Amino acid sequence: MTGSVTVAGLGPGDAALVTPEVTQALSRATDVLGYVPYVARITPRDGLRLHPSDNREELARATHALEIAAAGGHAVIVSSGDPGVFAMASALFEALETWPGDRHPEIAILPGITAMLAAAARAGAPLGHDFCAINLSDNLKPFALVENRLRMAARGDFAMAFYNPRSKSRPHQFARVLDILREECGGDRLILFARAVTTPDEAIAVTTLAEATPEMADMRTVVLVGNSATRRVGRWVYTPRSAESAAG
Amino acid sequence: MTGSVTVAGLGPGDAALVTPEVTQALSRATDVLGYVPYVARITPRDGLRLHPSDNREELARATHALEIAAAGGHAVIVSSGDPGVFAMASALFEALETWPGDRHPEIAILPGITAMLAAAARAGAPLGHDFCAINLSDNLKPFALVENRLRMAARGDFAMAFYNPRSKSRPHQFARVLDILREECGGDRLILFARAVTTPDEAIAVTTLAEATPEMADMRTVVLVGNSATRRVGRWVYTPRSAESAAG
Repeated sequence: MTGSVTVAGLGPGDAALVTPEVTQALSRATDVLGYVPYVARITPRDGLRLHPSDNREELARATHALEIAAAGGHAVIVSSGDPGVFAMASALFEALETWPGDRHPEIAILPGITAMLAAAARAGAPLGHDFCAINLSDNLKPFALVENRLRMAARGDFAMAFYNPRSKSRPHQFARVLDILREECGGDRLILFARAVTTPDEAIAVTTLAEATPEMADMRTVVLVGNSATRRVGRWVYTPRSAESAAG
Repeated sequence: MTGSVTVAGLGPGDAALVTPEVTQALSRATDVLGYVPYVARITPRDGLRLHPSDNREELARATHALEIAAAGGHAVIVSSGDPGVFAMASALFEALETWPGDRHPEIAILPGITAMLAAAARAGAPLGHDFCAINLSDNLKPFALVENRLRMAARGDFAMAFYNPRSKSRPHQFARVLDILREECGGDRLILFARAVTTPDEAIAVTTLAEATPEMADMRTVVLVGNSATRRVGRWVYTPRSAESAAG
């Protein structure tokens, strides 16, 4: 029996952003695993078992996929966006490190359109120059590390994209993030709140750090912050390709 | 006449990574513009004009697309990877800033699978935690800015992805980048050279900063550098989702 585990990125929501490679992998799957709302995006068919599970069950889900593969099945773990960006690919390799079998199953990671790039495309080209991606959730890291990364990113004059900016369990933290950014970048810096991009609930708001409030973000929002040169043209926001002077 | 300009990302090379959204836009195009090797990826058909142009012609290409749209055509500018990551989306908005018409044509940016995420997927999940994307070309920015960004990214303990690491016109610069990284991150840090990902020429090499040499990269290579926790499991390289302590 030669089973497999595939970790596939479904993109931000629109079916037109799912790659043919991912569609083909799903058509060959015997089992699809993932967080409940992502598995809900898979069309059921005969011979396909769906295994929706809760958030924060990532390691158990990855181990389950390895077990399915060890039994000869073709398990596809679905992530929103890209599986390698704050998603299930790392969790699979963490599970693989402690996997007792002497042979690893066949593994493939299939990239997807990650939320920050879908959001950037909707808004213009705010990430058109050097940029950072930061997961603001402190479930898996201390907030002091987040704070240091924010300051280093600002001092490098990077544009920034924030995933998981705000949750009910830590409502005050994103306010602190905005304070740090205002301190490092000034109030005029452009900031974009892109909620549920490419879905019917899509909403994109552009403002400045001075005007930004924590309530503008929730867990379905990706937040983009421009660099010192990011500007508007018409309804669009973009970061020029060139940089005139050294920041630092 | 209501023309349009669409900037579409073709992904890193494999046709199975072109999104249905981009395929549909190409099917409606009257004109496709882009750098020669990217336009070469478009299947010719009756009624479609192809406009390949040279590298460093980005602003002229963008203006040409606006002219086509003003005349009622549907221009698609194709980029490799994602058009918002060191590609044509920013160039279009730069051209739009000086566009003399009082009305802007309809504009859409269609995201694609960017090279760093395709490379990361092939290698495992090296960008599974916070990361930066840096264009190492100094065509459009002073190298002092690149150097500052490298140091800030290292001091923030970000994983890093480098686009355009090396060219014939600046062969010594990438050696300097490696020196800065060794100084900031130490010799044991993992570095990945991913060349021509998802094409028949694909080659991925994993080594350490101590062992890395400038010749391992060329202009078809995306270079990924792990953070302090990035490690190997089997043939894979991944960065754990969690971070135990504050860097900085």
